Amino acid sequence: MPMKDLSDLLEHMIEDIYYAEKQIAKELPKMAESAESDELRRAFEDHLEETRGQIENIEAAFRELGMTRKAEKCEAIEGILKEARGIMEEIEDADAMDAGMIASAQAVEHYEITRYGTIVAWAKHLGRSRVADLMQANLDQEYAADRKLSKLAEGMLNRQAA
Amino acid sequence: MPMKDLSDLLEHMIEDIYYAEKQIAKELPKMAESAESDELRRAFEDHLEETRGQIENIEAAFRELGMTRKAEKCEAIEGILKEARGIMEEIEDADAMDAGMIASAQAVEHYEITRYGTIVAWAKHLGRSRVADLMQANLDQEYAADRKLSKLAEGMLNRQAA
Repeated sequence: MPMKDLSDLLEHMIEDIYYAEKQIAKELPKMAESAESDELRRAFEDHLEETRGQIENIEAAFRELGMTRKAEKCEAIEGILKEARGIMEEIEDADAMDAGMIASAQAVEHYEITRYGTIVAWAKHLGRSRVADLMQANLDQEYAADRKLSKLAEGMLNRQAA
Repeated sequence: MPMKDLSDLLEHMIEDIYYAEKQIAKELPKMAESAESDELRRAFEDHLEETRGQIENIEAAFRELGMTRKAEKCEAIEGILKEARGIMEEIEDADAMDAGMIASAQAVEHYEITRYGTIVAWAKHLGRSRVADLMQANLDQEYAADRKLSKLAEGMLNRQAA
């Protein structure tokens, strides 16, 4: 469907991130299961809970915009998750597995950070403040999740070095 | 090739970002050509110059690590660029085109930011300070490029609103 203006583009981006969050919700239980450390497993489980809330926020944004709930295939997240699976399959060492999974999860977070950042900016510009607020809430959670993963990675590397 | 430890994983990540930067260097001239505003076109042209320098930094990291220069197919950047092309093809409005291209370019920047962040952390942990410095230089440029794109987007939206 051709996009004629910024409103169309905003709707497209919301459908795109909706697809992405749903894929992530499917992937997180597998990542939790593959995590070697309890800390990382719990982080993935907690983020799954958050992700479910984020999906609800997106559904609220759909209603706010009078849109039919629709997930638009997101090639970016498909690529990021495909790469994540490839890395997980190739790692043989337990410590490297967790380090690799954290790196993959952070690639996912950064994709979401950039998309929510764009959506918030456009929604504000278009006077859609309720949509902007909902998506800002998701953005804040993604930032926090990324920082948590950085800290986890740092802690793990330090323990290995000790 | 199975990865046994963090050193293997570091090498894999550097091969991955090398592939990504080369794909980006191919894509940027097309994005510059499609940009509606002179400001955005120049931003893409400037970033192409930077990207060439970043590729040289990665090649220096290869030498530093005694690695053969190799690009490992990066599914993530393939997905991000495929999505970017899809958005560009579907946009009909000139202002929306630039907004869409900035969003796509920021998705690319964020992928690079997360990868360089991981590479710097691992290189430091492994005592590879020269590699860490080279990749930190690339990381700083990607952060700056992302901020520049945010400012450009903001300026454009404000002008459209005026």
